[in-house]
Amino acid sequence: MTETREAASDFLARLGQFGKTGETGVTRPVYTDAWIAAVSWLQKEAQGKHMDVSVDANGTTFMSYPGSESTEIVAAGSHIDSVVNGGRYDGAYGVAAAYLAITDLYAEYGQPKKTMTAVAISEEDAARFPTTFSGSKHYAQVAETDPDIKDADGITFGQARAHAIAALPAFVTRQDQPLPSEWFELHIEQGPVLATTGIQLGVVSSICELKRFNVTLTGQANHAGTTPQHLRKDPMKAAARMITALDDYAKAVGEPLVFTVGSLTVEPGASNAIPSQVVFSIDVRHPKKAVVDDFEAKLNEQIAALTTVSGYVDSLMEPYPEVVMDERLQHQFAEICEAKGYRYQVMPSGAGHDTQIMNRKTKTAMLFVPSRDGISHSPAEYTAPEDLERGIAVLKAQLYRECY
Amino acid sequence: MTETREAASDFLARLGQFGKTGETGVTRPVYTDAWIAAVSWLQKEAQGKHMDVSVDANGTTFMSYPGSESTEIVAAGSHIDSVVNGGRYDGAYGVAAAYLAITDLYAEYGQPKKTMTAVAISEEDAARFPTTFSGSKHYAQVAETDPDIKDADGITFGQARAHAIAALPAFVTRQDQPLPSEWFELHIEQGPVLATTGIQLGVVSSICELKRFNVTLTGQANHAGTTPQHLRKDPMKAAARMITALDDYAKAVGEPLVFTVGSLTVEPGASNAIPSQVVFSIDVRHPKKAVVDDFEAKLNEQIAALTTVSGYVDSLMEPYPEVVMDERLQHQFAEICEAKGYRYQVMPSGAGHDTQIMNRKTKTAMLFVPSRDGISHSPAEYTAPEDLERGIAVLKAQLYRECY
Repeated sequence: MTETREAASDFLARLGQFGKTGETGVTRPVYTDAWIAAVSWLQKEAQGKHMDVSVDANGTTFMSYPGSESTEIVAAGSHIDSVVNGGRYDGAYGVAAAYLAITDLYAEYGQPKKTMTAVAISEEDAARFPTTFSGSKHYAQVAETDPDIKDADGITFGQARAHAIAALPAFVTRQDQPLPSEWFELHIEQGPVLATTGIQLGVVSSICELKRFNVTLTGQANHAGTTPQHLRKDPMKAAARMITALDDYAKAVGEPLVFTVGSLTVEPGASNAIPSQVVFSIDVRHPKKAVVDDFEAKLNEQIAALTTVSGYVDSLMEPYPEVVMDERLQHQFAEICEAKGYRYQVMPSGAGHDTQIMNRKTKTAMLFVPSRDGISHSPAEYTAPEDLERGIAVLKAQLYRECY
Repeated sequence: MTETREAASDFLARLGQFGKTGETGVTRPVYTDAWIAAVSWLQKEAQGKHMDVSVDANGTTFMSYPGSESTEIVAAGSHIDSVVNGGRYDGAYGVAAAYLAITDLYAEYGQPKKTMTAVAISEEDAARFPTTFSGSKHYAQVAETDPDIKDADGITFGQARAHAIAALPAFVTRQDQPLPSEWFELHIEQGPVLATTGIQLGVVSSICELKRFNVTLTGQANHAGTTPQHLRKDPMKAAARMITALDDYAKAVGEPLVFTVGSLTVEPGASNAIPSQVVFSIDVRHPKKAVVDDFEAKLNEQIAALTTVSGYVDSLMEPYPEVVMDERLQHQFAEICEAKGYRYQVMPSGAGHDTQIMNRKTKTAMLFVPSRDGISHSPAEYTAPEDLERGIAVLKAQLYRECY
């Protein structure tokens, strides 16, 4: 087992060299030179392990051992891009875990009955172009990304993609991959639940329904001194009351509902003027779509009940279908944890993952490892080697059950 | 009376040409060319009415008829500067009213027993330099403005002042004026109280105690999806609860307490991140200092009761002493209104005025005329000619009682 621990740490340290910033930071947005170098390195490693290496039209890499008895594909992986000034673990750990579990299984047990594929998804973290999940959306045949969207330098997604894919090693096959029958993703939790409780693994039950809104409240700007309270149309106080009422509601509903007001702007924004307008964001998540819908209804009730100011709500996201993990695969993850004596808990994912896209087309399951202090998207991301190892051991056992 | 009505409208229209922007806007910050032109015009007008015209070291203009029996000075006026893109009435009306009332009295009744002085104060509106009340502070010998403070172009207050005063008409005497024994100021209300109720005049009882604070609440930024509610340190929700609690408190205290949160900023300000810090302003006013002090105590209680986030309060203003109008002069204003059959109400001023500075050294009284829609500091400032006239008629009667 110590071998896996070292292999995982070594893999992440080597992958973390591509786009390295500072001691432990990583900046590896999709199709950048750092991304090309990382993907090229990974593809060469996979070739060294005698895997079939191919890349699809968006630059997602598939590293496979073909099955002996079935054309079914069992795939595992995560994304290989990172945010600007992110860490070594987000996405990368899921790629490392899939690669190491699959190459280990092949080394120990030889050719699988079903095709086992480790996948490095091109992009998930929306760090360069105004798009997210472009890799998994293409892989799962859910949607194609507009090639004309541009990065901050005016380079189009299509240009950057063509440049990057052309730069990949010559031995790689260019072909889109058929859908897998099962998809597994390991990921750092990106939250404090496991680290706080000392639990070693999270078996993901679902990916939270997420809705985002912008709430605009409009009143009337006026002199802060000369306008009596009863003649005011003050959107700031109305916003404070609305946020407080929604927080009370969220508390009554209870966890795992989470509700965040992350941005709020005030016009005109002078200390001696009653504001004319306040705009704030709402991010609300819960594993059950109905709970999020109820929250939205509560928000709309609040808007309808406004008296001195007027308000409206903009929905900021396309509604996603409910993302529930496959019951059998999820249960099997839990069984394996128990058999190995690992402390685990079944939990929803509050963050979005490629798995939510794959889930629309195939059976999925996810496993979380602890994030120290709940930190992610930062050079301070850290998961202990023994935690990395436990995740890989569970994935390996899962893949063995499914593929041998 | 129609004569006064026309004279007032005419005076304001002519004064409004200096710094005119658009149809009815005025931009006339202190010591600008527009200000120099306005002051020069006014001084020439006063000389035409055989007034003694002098200017003090800050450029405040004094236009006097000397008294026959006393060296006491009874002064009336307001400021002649304006904000950027302000209107024709703020400040200007108080100058016009003093000038017209005093020249009318002299024309009708000849030399007064006490010296009657119309005053055009150099600056009140803080539109150019980071100072306010520089004119009345000098006149009342309360404080001198630092000559080295700079405007946006790097010109110092001292340079601008020297340039402006040198440009004024040659016949003007340069000498600081002794303190008056009484000070009267007419001003547009800058609020909606009179316009809303149809009351014609406001007899000011006091100028509200004003305190301003910046409240800083610090929590911990975190992922909006993966951080359970019970592990959050969210300064945004804490701010919303604090503002709501203070608003409840303000409602319980009742009017004329006014409390405004005019600015609020959120760090980092992303919809998918729990904020790390929220900073908001508080502006609180009431005629009684004790009520404002109690509000401050309530705010500090709220800060002390914070649990998941930390907070502190910065006080943004020097504390002013309580500003209460002279009881006899205030009562006399009310009597005159009654005698003339004008609808009036006794009311505090929520906005600051030169009178609050003069009040530290002499007896003061103020009168408000209605502001249409409560608007000020805007080209949309408007007071009907008959309202302008009523104010001047009351001031004239007041000055007659005091000076003849």
